[in-house]
Amino acid sequence: MRTRIYNARILTMTEGNKIINGEIRICGSRIQYVGEEKKDDTVWDREIDAGGNLIMPGFKNAHTHSAMTFLRSYADDLPLLDWLNKQVFPMEAKLTKEHIYDLSKLAVMEYLTSGITANFDMYLTPETIAEASVDCGFRTVMAGGVNDFSQSVEELEGWYQTYNQYHELISFQLGFHAEYTTGRKILERISALSHKYHAPVFAHNSESRQEVAQCMERTGMTPTAYMNELGLFDYGGGGYHCVHMTEEDLQIFADKKLSVITNPGSNTKLASGIAPVQAMLDKGINIGIGTDGPASNNCLDMFREMFLVTGLAKLKEDDASAVDADKVLYMATVGGARAMGLTDCDVLGEGKLADLIMINLRRPNMQPLNNLTKNIVYSGSKENVALTMVNGKILYENGEFHIGVRPEEVYEKANRIISSFTL
Amino acid sequence: MRTRIYNARILTMTEGNKIINGEIRICGSRIQYVGEEKKDDTVWDREIDAGGNLIMPGFKNAHTHSAMTFLRSYADDLPLLDWLNKQVFPMEAKLTKEHIYDLSKLAVMEYLTSGITANFDMYLTPETIAEASVDCGFRTVMAGGVNDFSQSVEELEGWYQTYNQYHELISFQLGFHAEYTTGRKILERISALSHKYHAPVFAHNSESRQEVAQCMERTGMTPTAYMNELGLFDYGGGGYHCVHMTEEDLQIFADKKLSVITNPGSNTKLASGIAPVQAMLDKGINIGIGTDGPASNNCLDMFREMFLVTGLAKLKEDDASAVDADKVLYMATVGGARAMGLTDCDVLGEGKLADLIMINLRRPNMQPLNNLTKNIVYSGSKENVALTMVNGKILYENGEFHIGVRPEEVYEKANRIISSFTL
Repeated sequence: MRTRIYNARILTMTEGNKIINGEIRICGSRIQYVGEEKKDDTVWDREIDAGGNLIMPGFKNAHTHSAMTFLRSYADDLPLLDWLNKQVFPMEAKLTKEHIYDLSKLAVMEYLTSGITANFDMYLTPETIAEASVDCGFRTVMAGGVNDFSQSVEELEGWYQTYNQYHELISFQLGFHAEYTTGRKILERISALSHKYHAPVFAHNSESRQEVAQCMERTGMTPTAYMNELGLFDYGGGGYHCVHMTEEDLQIFADKKLSVITNPGSNTKLASGIAPVQAMLDKGINIGIGTDGPASNNCLDMFREMFLVTGLAKLKEDDASAVDADKVLYMATVGGARAMGLTDCDVLGEGKLADLIMINLRRPNMQPLNNLTKNIVYSGSKENVALTMVNGKILYENGEFHIGVRPEEVYEKANRIISSFTL
Repeated sequence: MRTRIYNARILTMTEGNKIINGEIRICGSRIQYVGEEKKDDTVWDREIDAGGNLIMPGFKNAHTHSAMTFLRSYADDLPLLDWLNKQVFPMEAKLTKEHIYDLSKLAVMEYLTSGITANFDMYLTPETIAEASVDCGFRTVMAGGVNDFSQSVEELEGWYQTYNQYHELISFQLGFHAEYTTGRKILERISALSHKYHAPVFAHNSESRQEVAQCMERTGMTPTAYMNELGLFDYGGGGYHCVHMTEEDLQIFADKKLSVITNPGSNTKLASGIAPVQAMLDKGINIGIGTDGPASNNCLDMFREMFLVTGLAKLKEDDASAVDADKVLYMATVGGARAMGLTDCDVLGEGKLADLIMINLRRPNMQPLNNLTKNIVYSGSKENVALTMVNGKILYENGEFHIGVRPEEVYEKANRIISSFTL
């Protein structure tokens, strides 16, 4: 498939917020050319007139639990522990692999509406998560979620081997759920795996004050210091959430070149707190943005997350100039890609994978065109996503999905699953 | 014009979050019937199959400065005073009435995309604001913005008389900019006007810590206590923002039956702080939600504001159960309508004005249908607004505007205005 998108504004993300006018050429899964419009006799399967709209790298949803779509708006406005113990865990116990396949597809559809071209997904059954993504044509990096109650270190190693060879759209990173759900022996074995494969490790980290306090009590260390002590970060990796971090924790992240995945929507809705994003930037820490799962957020929308990253930082720092829009846009694209190991999907350029979106500027919320990158972060919304392309294929265009399944079918299945659980 | 919308889920907002299945009949500007589907021989100009989608009252944007669209993304990430003095005021000084007409239309378009059916607009030239709204078919309540530098009390009285008789879509409320921009003599004269007409009074109130501290220094009272002492609230009214409120301030709001208009997007982006919305609810204070102007927010989107109202309250209270979704939805519709004096536009019912929206539930972010009102508040977005009707007329449907002007023309004018200012 050869696609040419011309008459476009293009934000390559290779030179800050600089926008060029021109065209982008996609050949198979990769970008062949980005630059001024040129004429030649190439035969195209499709030529798209962007009409002056903006082409940019797709957003990377760097932390999520996709299949939790079934619990969207099922349990809200509850204190965190009630929410987890009384609502989430009992319902999750009923899920089958097949359910997770269907529910993951619903999440993929929502990602596409928000211009998200890849997710970093921690959930229960890698086999059907990978299958759902491949069937949709979507890019997924899976993360291990080992803990005392589900997934074993043997499974983790098997998945690491299997899903890094499985399909060009799929990869797998070592990981566990969190320090507070995973005993020391298991953590030591995961650390050994990381050393064996020279592989980064990811986990929930310092999401709530309580989690940090309990770890201090148990180990005499913060979760970050404890995990570091166990050698879990010797080959990089990172933490999801990272809300309640000490200066020393941030220094460990900087020294070990770890990534923070910030999840402001979830942290807000579950009253977890505001992550110190400005302090992370000051230390040069790489930051990605994640929606977290639809049970806690409840939506999978990078536009909302981007506004929250900057808005909450401004509130926390009591400074309207904190964490500006361009830094946020970088996190949502390049920062996320780097965290996820998707270094071929970070920017638009020759040889990079064609994971990109078109932003419709001809909507009231994008006008006037004073500053396009600020418009995207401060006033952008799903209504502006005109096209989402993953691996060179258009999966979403003008509100329609091209993922090999009718939307109604996905909706029906999701409703049937949650209904059957609550009978 | 007679319109029937059938096969609908209907959230009337008359009985909490109860949703009925049936139809709604609109005759001219008013709702003739809401209830179960019925057959008769009425001849309809248009019958719309809602396909199971949700009909609900339109959102009320209860505080905005619409024409500031020209400054969207023009000046961001700046401390508040630099933003105001170096960017906003010098640019506003260049605006003509005609500019405000064009720029207000751009805002109206954005309101429609977000399901907003009325705005409470404080800006410079009521004559062209009213004209723009009427020309679009949009409902606007204008608020006086008197201060030491612009608008006089004589003009305020004239506008109060003129624009409460002008057109069925337009009304006018007494108001001034804020305590910190308006001298005591002017405030006393506005208080006298309020007493003369038995009319409520609205103003910015306690938006920043600095504003409150300066008022304390100047008057020995908080802004709320000071304005109350001047008799400004003897006939009701309310305050925009109300971020830094004392217990006594809230008690004055409760006792005088004043409305708070909360503006979380703007308060976040300008680092003003988090309003004590849970405490306001506990005191039984009526609350509406406003986007504030597009220079400070930067978008005019009730979905983003709704999530922020509940999310920020949860963070402030350190409690995930604070200010639940149904309360937020009430503020965004009924609460706002009451604050603005639009008591005929608050809910869906026989004889009420037909200001309503259709929410497309057949999008991934609304699935599964576990809880529709929570879905709207926690995961709703502009992509779900299938139709916006004001005063019985459809002004927006499936992404298209029916406001008597081509969108491109509005965009071109907005770009031309800001370009001419920055040459």
